[in-house]
Amino acid sequence: MTKSLAAHPERLLPADPGTRVIARDLLAAVQELPIISPHGHVPAEMIADDTAFEDPTALLIAPDHYVTRLLHAAGIPLSEVGAGGGPVDSRAAWRRFAGAWPLFDGTASGYWLRSEFEHVFGLPSSLVDSLPHGGADAVYDALAAKLSEPGFRPRHLFKEFGIEVLATTDDPLDSLDAHRRLAEDPSFAGRVLPTFRPDAYLTPSNPDWKLRVERLMAEASAGVEGFEGYLLALENRRRYFIEHGAVSADHGVRTPRTLQLDKAEAARLFSAALKGESTPAEQDAFEAHMLYQMARMSVEDGLVMTIHPGSYRNHHDPTFKRFGPDTGHDIPFAIDYTESIRPVLQDFGTAKDFHLVLFTLDETVFSRELAPLAGFYPSVFVGAPWWFLDAPDAMLRFRSAVTETAGFSRTSGFIDDTRAFCSIPARHDTSRRIESAFLARLVTEHRITEDRAHELILDIVDAAPRRVFKL
Amino acid sequence: MTKSLAAHPERLLPADPGTRVIARDLLAAVQELPIISPHGHVPAEMIADDTAFEDPTALLIAPDHYVTRLLHAAGIPLSEVGAGGGPVDSRAAWRRFAGAWPLFDGTASGYWLRSEFEHVFGLPSSLVDSLPHGGADAVYDALAAKLSEPGFRPRHLFKEFGIEVLATTDDPLDSLDAHRRLAEDPSFAGRVLPTFRPDAYLTPSNPDWKLRVERLMAEASAGVEGFEGYLLALENRRRYFIEHGAVSADHGVRTPRTLQLDKAEAARLFSAALKGESTPAEQDAFEAHMLYQMARMSVEDGLVMTIHPGSYRNHHDPTFKRFGPDTGHDIPFAIDYTESIRPVLQDFGTAKDFHLVLFTLDETVFSRELAPLAGFYPSVFVGAPWWFLDAPDAMLRFRSAVTETAGFSRTSGFIDDTRAFCSIPARHDTSRRIESAFLARLVTEHRITEDRAHELILDIVDAAPRRVFKL
Amino acid sequence: MTKSLAAHPERLLPADPGTRVIARDLLAAVQELPIISPHGHVPAEMIADDTAFEDPTALLIAPDHYVTRLLHAAGIPLSEVGAGGGPVDSRAAWRRFAGAWPLFDGTASGYWLRSEFEHVFGLPSSLVDSLPHGGADAVYDALAAKLSEPGFRPRHLFKEFGIEVLATTDDPLDSLDAHRRLAEDPSFAGRVLPTFRPDAYLTPSNPDWKLRVERLMAEASAGVEGFEGYLLALENRRRYFIEHGAVSADHGVRTPRTLQLDKAEAARLFSAALKGESTPAEQDAFEAHMLYQMARMSVEDGLVMTIHPGSYRNHHDPTFKRFGPDTGHDIPFAIDYTESIRPVLQDFGTAKDFHLVLFTLDETVFSRELAPLAGFYPSVFVGAPWWFLDAPDAMLRFRSAVTETAGFSRTSGFIDDTRAFCSIPARHDTSRRIESAFLARLVTEHRITEDRAHELILDIVDAAPRRVFKL
Repeated sequence: MTKSLAAHPERLLPADPGTRVIARDLLAAVQELPIISPHGHVPAEMIADDTAFEDPTALLIAPDHYVTRLLHAAGIPLSEVGAGGGPVDSRAAWRRFAGAWPLFDGTASGYWLRSEFEHVFGLPSSLVDSLPHGGADAVYDALAAKLSEPGFRPRHLFKEFGIEVLATTDDPLDSLDAHRRLAEDPSFAGRVLPTFRPDAYLTPSNPDWKLRVERLMAEASAGVEGFEGYLLALENRRRYFIEHGAVSADHGVRTPRTLQLDKAEAARLFSAALKGESTPAEQDAFEAHMLYQMARMSVEDGLVMTIHPGSYRNHHDPTFKRFGPDTGHDIPFAIDYTESIRPVLQDFGTAKDFHLVLFTLDETVFSRELAPLAGFYPSVFVGAPWWFLDAPDAMLRFRSAVTETAGFSRTSGFIDDTRAFCSIPARHDTSRRIESAFLARLVTEHRITEDRAHELILDIVDAAPRRVFKL
Repeated sequence: MTKSLAAHPERLLPADPGTRVIARDLLAAVQELPIISPHGHVPAEMIADDTAFEDPTALLIAPDHYVTRLLHAAGIPLSEVGAGGGPVDSRAAWRRFAGAWPLFDGTASGYWLRSEFEHVFGLPSSLVDSLPHGGADAVYDALAAKLSEPGFRPRHLFKEFGIEVLATTDDPLDSLDAHRRLAEDPSFAGRVLPTFRPDAYLTPSNPDWKLRVERLMAEASAGVEGFEGYLLALENRRRYFIEHGAVSADHGVRTPRTLQLDKAEAARLFSAALKGESTPAEQDAFEAHMLYQMARMSVEDGLVMTIHPGSYRNHHDPTFKRFGPDTGHDIPFAIDYTESIRPVLQDFGTAKDFHLVLFTLDETVFSRELAPLAGFYPSVFVGAPWWFLDAPDAMLRFRSAVTETAGFSRTSGFIDDTRAFCSIPARHDTSRRIESAFLARLVTEHRITEDRAHELILDIVDAAPRRVFKL
Repeated sequence: MTKSLAAHPERLLPADPGTRVIARDLLAAVQELPIISPHGHVPAEMIADDTAFEDPTALLIAPDHYVTRLLHAAGIPLSEVGAGGGPVDSRAAWRRFAGAWPLFDGTASGYWLRSEFEHVFGLPSSLVDSLPHGGADAVYDALAAKLSEPGFRPRHLFKEFGIEVLATTDDPLDSLDAHRRLAEDPSFAGRVLPTFRPDAYLTPSNPDWKLRVERLMAEASAGVEGFEGYLLALENRRRYFIEHGAVSADHGVRTPRTLQLDKAEAARLFSAALKGESTPAEQDAFEAHMLYQMARMSVEDGLVMTIHPGSYRNHHDPTFKRFGPDTGHDIPFAIDYTESIRPVLQDFGTAKDFHLVLFTLDETVFSRELAPLAGFYPSVFVGAPWWFLDAPDAMLRFRSAVTETAGFSRTSGFIDDTRAFCSIPARHDTSRRIESAFLARLVTEHRITEDRAHELILDIVDAAPRRVFKL
């Protein structure tokens, strides 16, 4: 057995030797396919500007809340690892991380990091293993040396990673200048697409909602006032995004509640919310109605609608106040889709070319709600396992929970959803391995033929994301 | 490896070769046992009249909402595949189905259909595989030819399938004439038993409840009026069912909520509901009380009580309005049993010979609630995985979730719950394979002996349904 | 294959032969390590007094609600097996149990009992197998003979089992005399530690709450009156426990709801509750606040805080009235941690040396809530699978659900939580086998190295409980 985990060709494949052979063959058929990443959080500027990465900590630790949260849990203050963008001694932060490296064993983050170290940066496995045993500085220096090479600039890595499409996530008022520059640059062959993410403009309970709405309308309502102008401004900005290549609109809502309201009532709630005169229940109703409106707009303008609900954002106030959002304490809770999403499906569940991709952090809805919904409504697709569920065992549970009811055609294809640019290859590789593992088991159990499994792995890895995200 | 999935003797058995050998032996011990089907939806008339099946679409596609829902999700209008009983061009519908055949890969429905094609109708595997590749008409013609043979009439198939007992699901006012004819027919050796299914008579929120209650009382209350007469009429019809062979009463409720009320309050709610003067909360309370009353009657008359809760029926209004119920858009949601069923268990949980079989579409209650309930109350049995959960992986999850707390003796035995007569052998075969697979794993892990596993597989497949359903 | 399940060295290890070899090696490394039991229900008096066990029924059946509940489900009255401490014919009870022995196949209880019979009492496997086949008396006599030997007195078994630490669960007003006697006894090398369990003093809705509070304050409030005195009394009793070796305080609450209140409001609710003038909502608020206060005290005095929520205690009133609590009808239900525990985590989630171990009977919170919480808050540890989930498959589901998000370092280590003294070795052995099985799979899938798995198994079995419970 080779000592290197990341290098092992059979990593993540099933234990049973007969099944593993089948899985290896399936994997081989898709291992070199281009990466399609229809949802994620890499900044377009980073690629447009092609600026060199700063240092190992700034690249791999500080901005990755998957990593900093486990360091925090181990008692390392977020300030010492640069979370939230504060000033930090990079090498000292790296040493903290290196000492905690064994805590990542068995986690998805640990698996990705090791893959990055070995595959992206070419570190020897033994050097990686030395991280908690005095090797912190050696690894830091090796990574820093690589980062100073031109081959480690974003655009070169983009190509080397085999990325064909990369979607970003953007504020509705973003100029999309970076996207435009990339699209117009003949030297850049990839596609970097914006994604319309309007949450902050749809949620009256957020303190800055009024300010954002005013800015939105000033910029895009073409002089139309009130609720009509608000809707028009959103429609206009969606059109702007589409003109700049967007294929989807993403909704990071607390719950998937949707609500149809007549125009007068919606306008009344809008006006009351702006005046600060609405009750919490009215604010929630308005937000639920705006999710319905977003579906209506997607039906009309063709943007794929993705919903990412069920996370209690910024669970720890003191951390939020000091370090801001996305610092590792968004905690999932139980959600319902069956009742919540029904108003949208009543009106748009069979609408032509409407694609509604439903994600969850609550695994219980996979077999109970999402597979049955996607198994009936042509508009509904089950979103791939996301965030905490974007991990080998969780992915297998997802396929097991969904497939027997909805088959393979009703799922979204893999979503990396990452801010960590260098983790993209490892994440897609993980997904391809696990899909191969799942299909191989079905072959061994004589539930599908091996020939059919080969068709399916190609469909899952390549055709599905193109089809579902209209790429 | 044989090319035919359905013909493979090791289909659905575990990947590990050692475990698979044990599973094969277990399966061999039960593979030829008669089929006991204590709950399902095959019409008794079909067997009594022994009418030839119309055509492949009318038999296998149009009435099977497990199938039509996935076609619908793929964008095929329900009207084009005959869902809801509307007029349809059978061959054209079949071609639509054939084109969509690959979408069923990995689903339970796909597995059953392939088994039917190959085992019931004797089609070569290669012909089945040709379905999406120009073979639609050839398969259609082959099936149609078979259906015109006398060997493919319902009664002959009933015998050929090895069905010993088949329970139907019937309206409380059904004459049960078909059941009577079958029971009195010396040429028919099987048992076709009615099941009392009173939901529509117990739910004041249903628009036709009042009309149904009036018809029920006119027919069966023996002149007694009011709530007393209503209860009496239900008791009388239950007795009528028992006289015609019924062993169970089935309750397809929205939630498993039960409620004890004193007689005066129940009578008041009954009267108010009939007058259209009750609130939604009062209607719900009455319905919960009637589920309690059904338990009380089961204690008294011995009918096994089965509860099938947790499905949001007819989720898509436009489809319901055009095609009626059971057209593929019943969507599960989260349920609670622990509190909901408590009033019934307070009073009847230890009642002599009371059998209460609790089903769920929400897998989370298996380990959390149903196994602990069935592991204490002598009346409670955990219902087999049902509907969306009646599939290989889901069955394994069920056994894993339930067994460590409740053992094997507290589960119901397999329930096919099907309208699709020709799928019955495939469904029972699937269950027997998965039970063998589960037991074989316990043997390999030295948790039970192989001898004991052989006793258990016989008990699970044959003795349990007889014992739980008092057959 | 050996006929004895309990003797088989590979019991509970994975089916795949390659994985099994790795698991065996891992197991071998920890099989002989001392037992650390930081939470359980063995009475300290039993060990202090070292009284001989009465008879097989009194030792193994009557007090074990895991066992009596399945007998009850099989129709055996609790009175006939001595549940609730009532008088019983021991041999007749044993015969009832013996007849029902096959019902325990596949259950955790059955596995433990068989292990006890063979490993603790040295019965031949064939004798155990004869239990339901006329062997009841022979087994009873063999066990009874053993129990009369000095080697089967509690203190000798304590040593033979290799127990290093055993925590009991105790009333806040317990004198802890037995613990003191053991600590002072030079002939006893083990550590038997009390655990502070204050539920009954914190729950105004309990009928005897007022009486208990009065006794508590009379004994420990040092004359301070009102809410201040109540808090002081609790603090004083915690200090008393700490002085007698306690390392943790355990909270068997209905839900994990916590609530911060200002002192005046808390005092008002306290006073109203004592006067019997508080509403149910006020009582709940007070109870939630007291859970918050317990966290505050743990931060101050260092007792590890463990929370065991989500069980509907004494579900069946008639059984409770006749047999008392802990007689097999505590039934879990769905819980939420994310919102419920937030007030505590706001204020104490990063408090120095605060250890908060969160248990659940609702498996859905493992991946959804507990792993994300423990993966951020330094104070939070995910409690091991408990009660109904303390079983091989459930333990594997737990590791699979938690590890990819939180790794291994954020889990509590094994907790046997048992009243059944003789089952302790079997329970810890089960855990060690399953942990080895899980790690071996990760090795086979090249997710961790075999060397690292050897470090992890030592950490999980030995270091984790010492670290988390401050031993």
